[in-house]
Amino acid sequence: MGTHIDAPAHFYKGSWRTQQIPIERLMGPGVIINIKDKAVRDPDYRIVMDDVIAYEDKYGRIPDGSIIMMNSGWFERFPDKNAVFNTQNVSDTTTFHFPGFHEDAVEWLIFNRHIYAVGGDTPSFDYGQSQTFPVHILIGRENVIGIENAAYLDRIPESGSTIFIPVVKIDDGSGGPTRLMATYDDGTDSPANSAELPQIALTIILFTICFGFVRI
Amino acid sequence: MGTHIDAPAHFYKGSWRTQQIPIERLMGPGVIINIKDKAVRDPDYRIVMDDVIAYEDKYGRIPDGSIIMMNSGWFERFPDKNAVFNTQNVSDTTTFHFPGFHEDAVEWLIFNRHIYAVGGDTPSFDYGQSQTFPVHILIGRENVIGIENAAYLDRIPESGSTIFIPVVKIDDGSGGPTRLMATYDDGTDSPANSAELPQIALTIILFTICFGFVRI
Repeated sequence: MGTHIDAPAHFYKGSWRTQQIPIERLMGPGVIINIKDKAVRDPDYRIVMDDVIAYEDKYGRIPDGSIIMMNSGWFERFPDKNAVFNTQNVSDTTTFHFPGFHEDAVEWLIFNRHIYAVGGDTPSFDYGQSQTFPVHILIGRENVIGIENAAYLDRIPESGSTIFIPVVKIDDGSGGPTRLMATYDDGTDSPANSAELPQIALTIILFTICFGFVRI
Repeated sequence: MGTHIDAPAHFYKGSWRTQQIPIERLMGPGVIINIKDKAVRDPDYRIVMDDVIAYEDKYGRIPDGSIIMMNSGWFERFPDKNAVFNTQNVSDTTTFHFPGFHEDAVEWLIFNRHIYAVGGDTPSFDYGQSQTFPVHILIGRENVIGIENAAYLDRIPESGSTIFIPVVKIDDGSGGPTRLMATYDDGTDSPANSAELPQIALTIILFTICFGFVRI
């Protein structure tokens, strides 16, 4: 699978299927949580509340409706399956080792920051060692979108971008491929000319990885 | 086919294939040319220079890098194949009658306004009666993107939106499905608070039509 979303219905019956997601939910402020150093030391790392608190200490309160993205540096391992799943046996899910989110942090973000989507640059926002997928179930229940196999997160600022998740509108889908995009202001819009619309100075693609492997 | 793009390579060998289109080209100022009344009177109508001139007289100069969209009212005919192709025989392309663009107007827009994409709410930006597809060949040669089967164009202003064409990054593709989106400012951003980023007040989807029929 390349870059794709899990619709809320992916792990929670009755939640939004792909074509039911309101279009307004497919965009929001980009929040990039960088755990690259931690992921090098511990491939089973999960983003916890301390990471969220550290982000807000640095960049201010996470806006409602944000798109939360983990930047673990993992995308550089694509498309090598063994490197991505960090195992010698890609058919045995119990051997997977890659970072993700702890459900407690995601639950806090859902109920206190009303996020629209959560995901990152690994094959799953539940970490590789998960066998119960608590984050998948939680976000499904709360109609939050999941994002997997994103890339080039280094190319956008950790705060201040707008991320778009324009999933293909597959009828009755439980997910679908997305051409993940982000825009941000490059700062050329000064107060002197601020009555005009700020220019969207740079658009980047969060890399659609083009290959297939085990679906999570 | 639902809403999709034709990559420049679709009708012109050597031009950009889907995965080669620079990401910056997948967004731009939205220019909606409304020919609904004309299309009612003449289903073979093609947008000509007079329509472009009338648009600029009303809204000012078309910005470089614009996404030019024909709003002919045609999307309301979907998904009825006979209504869309406006024929009793959808397997005979010589019987098709739906509006599109005249190549002279598109050529002028390419060389004088440096547009990034052109399309609309019909199955082809060459009109139904075309058998030679001059607009397809022209935009292919000039690396301009084509858009087909868009919808809900009435829901965005004719000038002032930003349109996104986030095509799925199909490897070596000659086109691909796109979740066409547009954003625009609703005017709540007054000069008094214009040092802040304007809010993107409303996002709309230009409707991915979910059914298959003859590919043009």
